[in-house]
Amino acid sequence: MSTGSGVNRQWRLAARPAGLIKESDFTLTSEPIPAPRDGQILVHNLYLSLDPTMRGWVSDMPNYMPPVGIGEVMRSITIGVVERSLNDRIKEGTVVSGLLGWQEYALSDGTDVQVVPEIPGLPLTGYWGLLGLVGPTAYFGLLDIGKPQAGETLVVTAAAGGVGSLVGQIGKIKGCRVVGIAGTDEKCKWIREDLGFDATINYRKEPLPEGLRQACPQGIDVHFENVGYSAIEAALPLINMRARIVLCGLISVYNDMEHPQPGPRFLAALIVKRARMEGFLFTDYISRVGEAGVDLVKWYLEGKLRYRVDVVEGFEQAPRAINKLFDGSNAGKLMVKV
Amino acid sequence: MSTGSGVNRQWRLAARPAGLIKESDFTLTSEPIPAPRDGQILVHNLYLSLDPTMRGWVSDMPNYMPPVGIGEVMRSITIGVVERSLNDRIKEGTVVSGLLGWQEYALSDGTDVQVVPEIPGLPLTGYWGLLGLVGPTAYFGLLDIGKPQAGETLVVTAAAGGVGSLVGQIGKIKGCRVVGIAGTDEKCKWIREDLGFDATINYRKEPLPEGLRQACPQGIDVHFENVGYSAIEAALPLINMRARIVLCGLISVYNDMEHPQPGPRFLAALIVKRARMEGFLFTDYISRVGEAGVDLVKWYLEGKLRYRVDVVEGFEQAPRAINKLFDGSNAGKLMVKV
Repeated sequence: MSTGSGVNRQWRLAARPAGLIKESDFTLTSEPIPAPRDGQILVHNLYLSLDPTMRGWVSDMPNYMPPVGIGEVMRSITIGVVERSLNDRIKEGTVVSGLLGWQEYALSDGTDVQVVPEIPGLPLTGYWGLLGLVGPTAYFGLLDIGKPQAGETLVVTAAAGGVGSLVGQIGKIKGCRVVGIAGTDEKCKWIREDLGFDATINYRKEPLPEGLRQACPQGIDVHFENVGYSAIEAALPLINMRARIVLCGLISVYNDMEHPQPGPRFLAALIVKRARMEGFLFTDYISRVGEAGVDLVKWYLEGKLRYRVDVVEGFEQAPRAINKLFDGSNAGKLMVKV
Repeated sequence: MSTGSGVNRQWRLAARPAGLIKESDFTLTSEPIPAPRDGQILVHNLYLSLDPTMRGWVSDMPNYMPPVGIGEVMRSITIGVVERSLNDRIKEGTVVSGLLGWQEYALSDGTDVQVVPEIPGLPLTGYWGLLGLVGPTAYFGLLDIGKPQAGETLVVTAAAGGVGSLVGQIGKIKGCRVVGIAGTDEKCKWIREDLGFDATINYRKEPLPEGLRQACPQGIDVHFENVGYSAIEAALPLINMRARIVLCGLISVYNDMEHPQPGPRFLAALIVKRARMEGFLFTDYISRVGEAGVDLVKWYLEGKLRYRVDVVEGFEQAPRAINKLFDGSNAGKLMVKV
């Protein structure tokens, strides 16, 4: 494999975004491709993962990881191939994944990357569509925090997204009635007809309180939130005894941290119904990722789990493409092909 | 014991209150004192318990008990003495407690009342100050939902109230740093100097966000909420990893169910800190009340737990007195002496 031009292009954070991320918040820079030293590998990135949590990384608010510094290469999970190796444990040609950032090439000592397993029947992009960040997030968020029981009603927001589409399908595997909220008829049709959701609500066409009331005749036992407060507010009056509201993401809130939105009304329902609202992060489950992987791959190969990936072509598209997460225009797990 | 005039005065619900409860929402009626039949007891009520949850009982919103009907005797926990008994199991002169309502006399078949135990060193009003509704509410809400650990920081609102004052003291017994929020300097002084709270905030004099930041240098592990959203909003930016926000009561919210308030901002902290907000009701712990009673009485007799009661004299005062719960003017467990 040749390094071509010998140049490593990098997107570096130039300014802290106010509101939506703009291309001008980043600078495209070039450096010579670095040479690995003893023990190091040189990874040629093939795909950059675009995830909602990245909005937090570019803000200067306290978070679970330090903010990306101004002038630093943008933090991002990537998949790449090992182009040169001076590391005994990792051979050239190995495909690895890690936090290698928005750049074409990166060095690693091998401790901060994982080998991407070759799974017959699963293409490379499927590693992120089914596993990567979204798979364990959906798996542990739903099963560990949401604790769905057969016969219960599960509501999922951003239901056609990378995490939401898996959450709903896992809910079906566990015997739940699954209701998905999404923002286009096409997304609703996909999760209903291809993924087997029981009911869907297009929140751009139908008020959520009325839509949820009709879609959840037995009330709501688990609400899995990926977006913000409005679906929680619509769900609270419908929750059943000991309901679980899982806070996975609040995308619509992250973009305006300087003017934080008021929370959902009707929180008193948590008392009347002895219910809980609980947040979690993928990072808490790093040590158990294998556990999720076994089930997810098994379900996939059995045809019980599908995923969709939204691959944007071209390294230079990264700063523009990330906003597809926030305007709802992505269809499935979003990534950039370098 | 004589029944005096032979008349049983009753406060009956006349209208569903809008906002604060008004005396005109009730009608004072009189009936002949009822005569017990075989198996029944006639209870002469001595004290009426006034509790925040009663605001929910007089609304027509769904709740954990059916609303009190218009024209019905107002529902209330009472303590009374058995004046006549045609029940083999309950002797005349026994002191009992039950949901016997805002009336001077009530009949019971004995299954809906509990015998009030005679505890040497604990006066009759202490049954409510230490046990009754507030004791098990504080005990199970804090220990079962809040799960405080020694060395953690516990914040309590309405900290001089019936529940809050016990929560803070139980927190001290469990080795926590305890911060109380109350609305007068007198209340703050009492919980700090007499009850041993580590720090207090008078929310009428000091902004809560700044007050909490100063009082909680190690962050907040357990937040016990008796009032509403503002203290939760001030606490959220300060919560530690895996913090627990216990929703016991939202008094300030109940009074305006028709125009529900927006919830607290900063709920995204629940994700970043993998924290939870959870509601509970006393009624879930009915079967375990004895368990709480053993500890509470033991701690009381050891001098580790104090209570204060606010006794309003005169049956006719009940509808006016209940608003002391909502304007913060009560000092300790509120009750009416019949």
